[in-house]
Amino acid sequence: MLEYLESLRLVDHHCHGVLGEDLGRTAFEAMLTEAETAGPPGVSMFDTQVGFALRRWCPPVLGLDAHAEPEEYLARRAELGAAEVNRRFLAAAGLDALCVDTGHTPRAILEPPGLGRLAGARAHEIVRLESVAERVAADGVEAGRFAGEVRSRLDAADAVGAKSIAAYRAGLELSGARPSDAEVAGAAGRLMRAAESGDDPPRVCDEILHRFLVWCAVDAGLPVQFHVGYGDADADLRRGDPLLLIELLRAMDPVPAMLLHNYPFHRNAGYLAQVLPNVHVDAGLATHNLGHRSPALIAELLELAPFGKVLYSSDAFGLAELYHLGALLFRRGLAGFLAGGAEDGAWTARDAERVAGLVASGNARRVYGLE
Amino acid sequence: MLEYLESLRLVDHHCHGVLGEDLGRTAFEAMLTEAETAGPPGVSMFDTQVGFALRRWCPPVLGLDAHAEPEEYLARRAELGAAEVNRRFLAAAGLDALCVDTGHTPRAILEPPGLGRLAGARAHEIVRLESVAERVAADGVEAGRFAGEVRSRLDAADAVGAKSIAAYRAGLELSGARPSDAEVAGAAGRLMRAAESGDDPPRVCDEILHRFLVWCAVDAGLPVQFHVGYGDADADLRRGDPLLLIELLRAMDPVPAMLLHNYPFHRNAGYLAQVLPNVHVDAGLATHNLGHRSPALIAELLELAPFGKVLYSSDAFGLAELYHLGALLFRRGLAGFLAGGAEDGAWTARDAERVAGLVASGNARRVYGLE
Amino acid sequence: MLEYLESLRLVDHHCHGVLGEDLGRTAFEAMLTEAETAGPPGVSMFDTQVGFALRRWCPPVLGLDAHAEPEEYLARRAELGAAEVNRRFLAAAGLDALCVDTGHTPRAILEPPGLGRLAGARAHEIVRLESVAERVAADGVEAGRFAGEVRSRLDAADAVGAKSIAAYRAGLELSGARPSDAEVAGAAGRLMRAAESGDDPPRVCDEILHRFLVWCAVDAGLPVQFHVGYGDADADLRRGDPLLLIELLRAMDPVPAMLLHNYPFHRNAGYLAQVLPNVHVDAGLATHNLGHRSPALIAELLELAPFGKVLYSSDAFGLAELYHLGALLFRRGLAGFLAGGAEDGAWTARDAERVAGLVASGNARRVYGLE
Repeated sequence: MLEYLESLRLVDHHCHGVLGEDLGRTAFEAMLTEAETAGPPGVSMFDTQVGFALRRWCPPVLGLDAHAEPEEYLARRAELGAAEVNRRFLAAAGLDALCVDTGHTPRAILEPPGLGRLAGARAHEIVRLESVAERVAADGVEAGRFAGEVRSRLDAADAVGAKSIAAYRAGLELSGARPSDAEVAGAAGRLMRAAESGDDPPRVCDEILHRFLVWCAVDAGLPVQFHVGYGDADADLRRGDPLLLIELLRAMDPVPAMLLHNYPFHRNAGYLAQVLPNVHVDAGLATHNLGHRSPALIAELLELAPFGKVLYSSDAFGLAELYHLGALLFRRGLAGFLAGGAEDGAWTARDAERVAGLVASGNARRVYGLE
Repeated sequence: MLEYLESLRLVDHHCHGVLGEDLGRTAFEAMLTEAETAGPPGVSMFDTQVGFALRRWCPPVLGLDAHAEPEEYLARRAELGAAEVNRRFLAAAGLDALCVDTGHTPRAILEPPGLGRLAGARAHEIVRLESVAERVAADGVEAGRFAGEVRSRLDAADAVGAKSIAAYRAGLELSGARPSDAEVAGAAGRLMRAAESGDDPPRVCDEILHRFLVWCAVDAGLPVQFHVGYGDADADLRRGDPLLLIELLRAMDPVPAMLLHNYPFHRNAGYLAQVLPNVHVDAGLATHNLGHRSPALIAELLELAPFGKVLYSSDAFGLAELYHLGALLFRRGLAGFLAGGAEDGAWTARDAERVAGLVASGNARRVYGLE
Repeated sequence: MLEYLESLRLVDHHCHGVLGEDLGRTAFEAMLTEAETAGPPGVSMFDTQVGFALRRWCPPVLGLDAHAEPEEYLARRAELGAAEVNRRFLAAAGLDALCVDTGHTPRAILEPPGLGRLAGARAHEIVRLESVAERVAADGVEAGRFAGEVRSRLDAADAVGAKSIAAYRAGLELSGARPSDAEVAGAAGRLMRAAESGDDPPRVCDEILHRFLVWCAVDAGLPVQFHVGYGDADADLRRGDPLLLIELLRAMDPVPAMLLHNYPFHRNAGYLAQVLPNVHVDAGLATHNLGHRSPALIAELLELAPFGKVLYSSDAFGLAELYHLGALLFRRGLAGFLAGGAEDGAWTARDAERVAGLVASGNARRVYGLE
């Protein structure tokens, strides 16, 4: 089964750009997990599931033995240089296509085409809704023209889907109703006044605007990705349970909704994928962060979620290793899940291969209309 | 251990009626999971854990090989006819008794006696509290007489327990206090005015009324089942966590409370079963919906819940296959759990058999006073 | 790996006193789990995961065969007497140090030094914050002097850490801000007026006071333990999710915060341990309560939590058996986790031993500054 999955090229339906610069140990550890920094004194972020997974699987790609010590690994990485390291790991991921969220690029160098070239895969863009709105606000349009301007920029974007980061801002408790023009204009006015009065760029953090943006994407016929659950400390998991989103998910049917990551709410997400026809799920960055435990996560995600509604994503950001680790651990976890069921007689090997094809790429191709 | 469990007839303490009509593929898929419809375009609900479990275990009961394709299975099902299919699966479930919720019967044909005859088991009735109240309201009694009328109908019901579907309506956050007569009369008045002004039948969705109904059952000495967690999209899992119910559960002691299904909150339910003396739990429809993964669910439910407070139920509705699958997967899951512990030396084989007897039927018999 | 872990003496960074009196069956069963009493009629609390774990592992320490029946076990326990039983189990736990919460001692006889002598281990005190405040209030100081008096008693305490039981009272949703002097004086006044007007001793249950107490500990440089999740029925799990505490955890950095027990929110706790530099976690009393299932808990806790931020505790209270069971099950669970990974090639045996040392005692030593 693993051999079969290794023969399949994946669609990574949610990832970010990769850093083009060399990294010292502190910077590398800070990128490894969702912590904002490397570990506090006495704690190495290499001593985590993702750290051990990296030491297990990544050194051989750079010509070292598995389980290399962190210092040895980072020295070899520096020796090869970021460009070569990026090339090797993106190629090793075995991707058919990537859908790249271009909204969060503090230092990442690669636009989707460059990432696609490294990966030997087609690269598509996912437009981040809040970023579009923030650019419109920063450009200083009138509040009354805000909605139209957002819609026209979305229409102009060459994207296969849109992404909402409401979970990082006002939270996922978004009602299902379309906001009225007056509500949107009011909220846009508040956003722009805040932008004018402060030094900071405008920042969407308003239930009305998050909801408005989702409806813009729905009207444009774009599948909508939602950040859900696990992310960095800004994500505020108190408001990141996908159950909070049920009304909007229901209201936007039949436009597809993609619940990203979901951990530790992945069973809740699986429930939504079963009972609501337009809801799809993935395990995203939780896969590589759980490392050796990722098979447990994959099995839990697949409890209620129909197999035709589960997608692969890495949510890799910054470190090239994460594109490779995500793909490798996902293939191994899914292969173990499917092979275990086939051995126990829960399904046939033929059905297992068919399901593998759906999850590896078929579902993503269907939902995003790739090809 | 499995052999031992197969020798035990189960008490299915929570199930519904079975459909008496033949079903086409779309209708069958729509009944298979908690989704309201068959899968959206491109998604088959057979490609789920419950779908694969059905294809693994049900075809042999109809004379086909395991893992029959859906079309072949449904053709054979149609050939035998619903009556014969129902007879075979209900018999295969190996039940000693059923407790049938008679409150939700949009199309189901069988009253408890008929279901009991098919299963070769005694059938008891569970009276659905909200349905009693809604019939009283539809009959148009005065608000001041509503409470008395509900109580007298409950007393007249020949039921071994009552069921609350607050989780489908106002949610599980019910306080522990008995509502006052004035509160009940006020809420009853609102219910009846809503019923008079609209076309729809009256619908209880009011914290005061749900709570009042539970107290009516408590006063009648009836164990109370609560829908908790997993159900169709109407269940609104945001308000379906059993922890929300803790005050009422505590207040109704020593009358038994049965937390049904619970997934994905089954660990929370297990906690309540440990710390509150009158609380019992099951895994209900989550068992067959999780299919090959149901052993993980059973093991998690049994982490904190005392083994003397765990019951079996199928929550089967409509498809005869689900009575069989629920019983089969529960027996296998519990057998695996108990045998694994015995092999590891965690408990003796004798204790494992004793616990199997409690969970299979002994606990239900004790709590409902069957026999 | 198990042999290696058995060679390591543990730091039990959170436990309570042990009862010095002999116990009948009802009293023993009532102490075994977090239920307030022994099981209701027909239910034995020995028929639980912790009950079976006790029967598996504890009789040999008293010279009986494993799996002794409860009556036989309790007879032998009575024959030996509480003092001898306590000595045997505390010694069997294999501890290097204990951090003893001295705030909850309804009947426990042993102060930390006595407990340490029994265990052959150094014993440190953890001061319970709410108890300090309640003693100050009971002593009748003026509201305006309350804050200063609490701070000076904390400074005078010879403790290595402090503990908050906000989860048992006002809940974990504590804001991150320091309360003002006026807020504290107001809240202290309310506490003392309540104490004066009633028969009961004063009881802190006020968001402002819980928060104030945490800041007192932070200012005194004491690591702060927080009860989280699983506990007795008073714990009110609705308000016991560690995610509720995120603002205060962030605000108190770099003073270490220890999230205790956490079940069933242990994955949420692991997330916090990853993304916030000062947060540490344990599985506490959930370990022995889950018995044969505790390996699953340990594996889930270690999904996101960095291995340098996970500690051991028993949270044992009253029954000497629980100090032994907690330590034994933790060693076995962690050994299985680490050995399994080593066998699968997820990490090297050398790394596994290093991680074992961190979790068994190294992390606790570093965080509390022991030796």
